[in-house]
Amino acid sequence: MGQAAQAPSGTRDLLADEVRRRKAAFDVLSQIFESFGFDPLETPAFENLDVITGKYGEEASKLIFKILKRGAHEASGQADLALRYDHTVPLARVIGSYGAKLPTPYKRYAIGPVWRADRPQEGRFREFVQCDIDTVGSQSALADAEIVLALAQSLDALGVHDFTFTVNSRKALYALLEVYGVDSDDGPSVLGTLDKLDKIGAAAVAKELTAARGLTPDVAESLVGDVAADNSDRVRQRLNTTEQGKAGLAEVDRLIELTTSAGLTSDRIAYVPRMVRGLDYYTGAIYEVVAAGYPGSIAAGGRYDHLVATLGGPDVPACGGSIGIERILAIQGSQDTERRGLDVALTVLGGEEDLMRLGAELRGQNLRVGMYFGSSTKLGKQLKWAHDQSARISVLYGPEERAEGEVTLRDMRSGDQTRVPFTEAASHVRKVLEAP
Amino acid sequence: MGQAAQAPSGTRDLLADEVRRRKAAFDVLSQIFESFGFDPLETPAFENLDVITGKYGEEASKLIFKILKRGAHEASGQADLALRYDHTVPLARVIGSYGAKLPTPYKRYAIGPVWRADRPQEGRFREFVQCDIDTVGSQSALADAEIVLALAQSLDALGVHDFTFTVNSRKALYALLEVYGVDSDDGPSVLGTLDKLDKIGAAAVAKELTAARGLTPDVAESLVGDVAADNSDRVRQRLNTTEQGKAGLAEVDRLIELTTSAGLTSDRIAYVPRMVRGLDYYTGAIYEVVAAGYPGSIAAGGRYDHLVATLGGPDVPACGGSIGIERILAIQGSQDTERRGLDVALTVLGGEEDLMRLGAELRGQNLRVGMYFGSSTKLGKQLKWAHDQSARISVLYGPEERAEGEVTLRDMRSGDQTRVPFTEAASHVRKVLEAP
Repeated sequence: MGQAAQAPSGTRDLLADEVRRRKAAFDVLSQIFESFGFDPLETPAFENLDVITGKYGEEASKLIFKILKRGAHEASGQADLALRYDHTVPLARVIGSYGAKLPTPYKRYAIGPVWRADRPQEGRFREFVQCDIDTVGSQSALADAEIVLALAQSLDALGVHDFTFTVNSRKALYALLEVYGVDSDDGPSVLGTLDKLDKIGAAAVAKELTAARGLTPDVAESLVGDVAADNSDRVRQRLNTTEQGKAGLAEVDRLIELTTSAGLTSDRIAYVPRMVRGLDYYTGAIYEVVAAGYPGSIAAGGRYDHLVATLGGPDVPACGGSIGIERILAIQGSQDTERRGLDVALTVLGGEEDLMRLGAELRGQNLRVGMYFGSSTKLGKQLKWAHDQSARISVLYGPEERAEGEVTLRDMRSGDQTRVPFTEAASHVRKVLEAP
Repeated sequence: MGQAAQAPSGTRDLLADEVRRRKAAFDVLSQIFESFGFDPLETPAFENLDVITGKYGEEASKLIFKILKRGAHEASGQADLALRYDHTVPLARVIGSYGAKLPTPYKRYAIGPVWRADRPQEGRFREFVQCDIDTVGSQSALADAEIVLALAQSLDALGVHDFTFTVNSRKALYALLEVYGVDSDDGPSVLGTLDKLDKIGAAAVAKELTAARGLTPDVAESLVGDVAADNSDRVRQRLNTTEQGKAGLAEVDRLIELTTSAGLTSDRIAYVPRMVRGLDYYTGAIYEVVAAGYPGSIAAGGRYDHLVATLGGPDVPACGGSIGIERILAIQGSQDTERRGLDVALTVLGGEEDLMRLGAELRGQNLRVGMYFGSSTKLGKQLKWAHDQSARISVLYGPEERAEGEVTLRDMRSGDQTRVPFTEAASHVRKVLEAP
């Protein structure tokens, strides 16, 4: 054997306890999404290249894993498939191709890996799970509210309690720019600059708006003042002067009303005028979630009424959200991961057939049972194995026990040993395991 | 929108009920493997190309999906990664790279997709789930027996009851060839021909052994007669004349003894001398499972003591098995798939905040709740939506109900409607759902 081969750069082998921890989290999320009536959707790991090409912009397209043609075409060096980059483009494809076969609206969740050839770095992987819920085919504010509630309940269930939804509306943001006379073509870039408020501060943002975005210093300062204010009164006043502004505010307020009606406490959701969300495709209410102890935003979403069409599907209204499950798992991972041990370890000192029978009986009682498969006939060595398996109980069945039709049960925590009739072994094991 | 894009050739979009059905099956398998003390392992979807290259033989290597280098290297047309082709090569890599950090023996299960660029055809996919259990680092016959038991229990749990394990031993097969004076270098090709017995019949096999494998007609006929016999007495006699033959028979008999001790009924496992298994890497006991109503073998496995080394890991004894879960799911799929509907459909005729609150309360009782998100204000249309969602109960909350502080519950099966106080809606819903 040469140098031991590793998993490819930016990917991970997930060993037992990590797989279990992740699966438990995904199951919790699935269950919550199902309770809201969302349906699971699983699309293939790869898509035809043309489905993916041109959907993510120039920078992102460099991060797409492309798959070489096969057989005689391999030599062409050309690709015809690509690993999925997110769950949204496959969703748009499914909407386009299944159409009326899907429920209306189509509410789906997707929890599965996506692949991006990002430069590997601490906590960023090239294969990672994205967790999305989306409702396609409804303009109702109830649909937006439901996504927020499902995200909030998910975070709670994952043990992230100290979180806040910051809410805004793309309509409100564009109305504000309108009030300030910003040309609508410049909207996205001006919003992009405003999005840096938390990072570079009000003064630097105002400066950039003047220097790079062509706003006058007065306008830039006033605009920044509006959105940066801790209190939203000033921006509300401004927005109430136009129809689009009123509509945007109504969108924000309705989302807050509906979600708090359903029990989201009002300290967990607030209108934050500075919350812009970088992505251009949002058209209505938008939100991000920040939580104490977690960097950046750990969930986000909004309404994106024309995105599905842009991605090659039909032009249908839609809204959706996403949970940064990898980030949450990574931070919680440093806390505690309990190893799953054996309930019962069967040592083997002869009498294999009896032990096979006993093993089957114990597993029939929903116990996790392992058997010593090594070559040592020394009990000490076998008990060390049982210990390494974090076994709660070891079964000892040597010549003496066999002669008497008995087994010895060893409590691996206390070291206590009890000898019981072989036929009663399973019920005794149960008693020991159920003891406090 | 142009022509609706499809999933790539040979792949599938899995919609709601199919995802649920598959997940239920995978969960059942995981639970069984866990009860035997197997640990889950998840490796990345792709491996470095050199880990995969040269591991599967020339024909298979054409079926590997290779991933193009990225960035400036894309233009080279070269690949540096490949989608995993099975779970065994990744296992060998993990064994080699984690070594002593893994339990000894290392018992792991893997249930996940693999990718092969096979020609797409009915029931054969390019992305499909393989389900493997393997025990690495033990020579014990108990380890082999455990794999057989776990496979048998899995099949039972999946609803495949009428199955039989056909057992043989590579040692026994090679011993038989030795008895007949077949050169050991010719062993694999002779076994390959014998493997065709069920397909082409005894006469054709004997002919091929003579023509293509160089056996004399007498030897060929006698050899075929041994392995093709319904009764294994003749081959047992022959094998008992050599040490290797005795060892092979002992291996077979021990596997049957141990598994039947644990409750596998003796009609479900038998020594079948003609059962060869095509793959060269097996070194000890081997088995295949056939079941009434399922074509081919639906599970298989055996001992492969040097395979891990061949695949780039350390030279450790190992045994393992695999369940043809896709085949089983495909055949069962034609039987019945029940659509998961809503427990409660909330129609919306105003009073949205109240309905949001009620929805949260119902979900808190572990119910699956959907809300009407369409634009129609007509109850008939909303009830049609509820019907399409396979809802059990619809909640009606019009102006009349609101004025009285009540709601109407409609049983969607019987059409019965009951009006109850709003505050008691949740408990009434529960009563209706719990009624037989």
